[in-house]
Amino acid sequence: MRILVLGGDGYLGWPTAMYLSARGHDVHVVDNYLRRRVHAEGGTDSLVPIAPSLAARVSAWREVTGLTITITEGDLTEWPVVERVFKDFAPDTIIHYGQIAAAPYSMMDRHRSVFTQYNNVINNLNVLWAMHDMVPDAHLVKLGTMGEYGTPNIDIEEGWIEIAHNGRSDRLPFPKLPASLYHCSKVADSTNIEFCCRAWGMRATDLNQGVVYGLQTDETRLDPRLVTRFDYDEIWGTALNRFCLQAVIGHPLTPYGKGGQSRGFLNILDTLRCVELACLNPADRGEFRVFNQFTEQFSIMQLAELVQRTGKEYGLDVDIQPVANPRVEKEEHYYNAKHTKLIHLGLEPHLLSETLVENMFGEIKRHRDRVITEHILPRTTWRAGAAKAQPTERELVSG
Amino acid sequence: MRILVLGGDGYLGWPTAMYLSARGHDVHVVDNYLRRRVHAEGGTDSLVPIAPSLAARVSAWREVTGLTITITEGDLTEWPVVERVFKDFAPDTIIHYGQIAAAPYSMMDRHRSVFTQYNNVINNLNVLWAMHDMVPDAHLVKLGTMGEYGTPNIDIEEGWIEIAHNGRSDRLPFPKLPASLYHCSKVADSTNIEFCCRAWGMRATDLNQGVVYGLQTDETRLDPRLVTRFDYDEIWGTALNRFCLQAVIGHPLTPYGKGGQSRGFLNILDTLRCVELACLNPADRGEFRVFNQFTEQFSIMQLAELVQRTGKEYGLDVDIQPVANPRVEKEEHYYNAKHTKLIHLGLEPHLLSETLVENMFGEIKRHRDRVITEHILPRTTWRAGAAKAQPTERELVSG
Repeated sequence: MRILVLGGDGYLGWPTAMYLSARGHDVHVVDNYLRRRVHAEGGTDSLVPIAPSLAARVSAWREVTGLTITITEGDLTEWPVVERVFKDFAPDTIIHYGQIAAAPYSMMDRHRSVFTQYNNVINNLNVLWAMHDMVPDAHLVKLGTMGEYGTPNIDIEEGWIEIAHNGRSDRLPFPKLPASLYHCSKVADSTNIEFCCRAWGMRATDLNQGVVYGLQTDETRLDPRLVTRFDYDEIWGTALNRFCLQAVIGHPLTPYGKGGQSRGFLNILDTLRCVELACLNPADRGEFRVFNQFTEQFSIMQLAELVQRTGKEYGLDVDIQPVANPRVEKEEHYYNAKHTKLIHLGLEPHLLSETLVENMFGEIKRHRDRVITEHILPRTTWRAGAAKAQPTERELVSG
Repeated sequence: MRILVLGGDGYLGWPTAMYLSARGHDVHVVDNYLRRRVHAEGGTDSLVPIAPSLAARVSAWREVTGLTITITEGDLTEWPVVERVFKDFAPDTIIHYGQIAAAPYSMMDRHRSVFTQYNNVINNLNVLWAMHDMVPDAHLVKLGTMGEYGTPNIDIEEGWIEIAHNGRSDRLPFPKLPASLYHCSKVADSTNIEFCCRAWGMRATDLNQGVVYGLQTDETRLDPRLVTRFDYDEIWGTALNRFCLQAVIGHPLTPYGKGGQSRGFLNILDTLRCVELACLNPADRGEFRVFNQFTEQFSIMQLAELVQRTGKEYGLDVDIQPVANPRVEKEEHYYNAKHTKLIHLGLEPHLLSETLVENMFGEIKRHRDRVITEHILPRTTWRAGAAKAQPTERELVSG
């Protein structure tokens, strides 16, 4: 297949590009290094040092495997970039990771929230129009998030729900209660994509992904120049990755609030396989297909306790010290999200285990000297009028 | 009350500003004349000649009534404009009409669809942040549209629906199947506003308005310089207004397709009263309240037949000649949308009657020489790959 990977310099985008290249697909990657730039501005960085550019990455990939991945450095909000890529590469599958994916970033201030929604909504619209104009039969595989749904008090279905109401019924888009202005941008994308499937006969799969953990894939292991980024800071990091890092550096694990927040999680290896399965089994013309892409549900406190338990066996002294929740979210709630469609397509999940957590400890230890501690604790709050300053690193650790 | 009317130069915005000023409120209007500019670019125009600027309008208003409406000419996508207006005027109510509101315009091409979503989503986000930063207790009255819902096969509730599913239940946002990329932008706004109510404790009322008809209000009648615009072209016009105009100029009425499309409709007088009722009865802190703002449901063919019947009595020879539907929409469908909340607040509807249609005929006749016929028939299509050229005026009329 001719597969375009948008956002192919990212945590998931780069491993996906290699994974698909290794399996014989013709892969073209687009990225504008936005994630790298925003980290540089914020004083944060990937724990693992990554190759300095896409050119360096694909050159190492060719050297190690003999395979070619082609690249475009460019911004998908700029139509000439999008137009040229679609015209020159003529993809039959487009995997769209190329968005700002950080809830706290979108809640920091007006500028960043507008930038997040502008970047995400407009670049996705450009992709939709490029498909409409140039490759109307192609299949869009779009990365969404389980955070679009929020935490309703009913089972979460995969994108659509049959609603019986006043004696009639219909299959309708599952209602969304997004968790941040970033998540709102993903809901807007889903709305636009569903419409384009309906109006234009487009093919699309919306992957509502859970929280991804893990550092390594078969391809990143091949060479140090092929590793993927690993974020643990309050803005770009995710819960399990951050907890493992905190355990290794002797920092208390910091669940937000009561820690009863339940979410779906998956191993980065399963992300790659899910995306592959979506590509190999495209949606029909006119079909807006939604998969809930995760393998297990955990509460945040369950994860913290798993890391604490594993840490003990590993010889680490791990404390759990909840911090005031910077987010507006339910801390105790019903959560039961369906996730059978990818299993039916053949996904065999890599479930979370103490062994996996130990492997993560090992990887993190190797880069321990690179940890930037002052950006681990949450400073960005959801609440109106809340003081933006949260407890500092020193206040917490000495507290 | 201190009421900010965003988009106060428009078809509804200007009459709303006068209506509220006449009732003792302190009104400030913002507009950037986008609607006027886009008409000029597209070769279309309001049937009724309107005063050349907001300055001219408020000056006539002061001359006629002795009342003052203050104005800002500026673009709400520009934060410095929004910031200054909110800081200087400190509204306690914000009525947000200031968006591009044309489904066909958003479907014409990539540029216009991106412009529509950019303008609407970003200017609304700016308003939300301005409220967050400067007037957190103020009440947002946001103009949405019934077109956000589409035509589900179940009763349409007012914004929220109690869903029973697998033995549990929750009150959740009503699922949306928006009818165009413009309507998608309104869904995105609703999503953002609901989130801000939940996260920031904001007060908001989303008015999902039906199709408005009518040319005159008590205030527009006071002086020719106070009239409001009246659009009938394929891009900016709405069904009943267009049918009345077609009847007067001897053009066949042109329902799209079978004409079984059912929608909610309301008189412009009821728009003003509904908006007033929303302002006088604000949502609670943290409440995202949705009203379905229309008074009656009709199919497009019922409207055409009403205009034909009234025309006969009025001495007009009115033909109905359906044209191929340029939109992707169901032409025969269930439609039952609830609209009781505004009635409970005191709305007394002005129902559609032959008398009202006759009055519209009379108003339109007075400006008959200004009709631009070549932009009445649809040229903008929803379908991918469809030829953009539809039958020309001459082809239809001679056909």
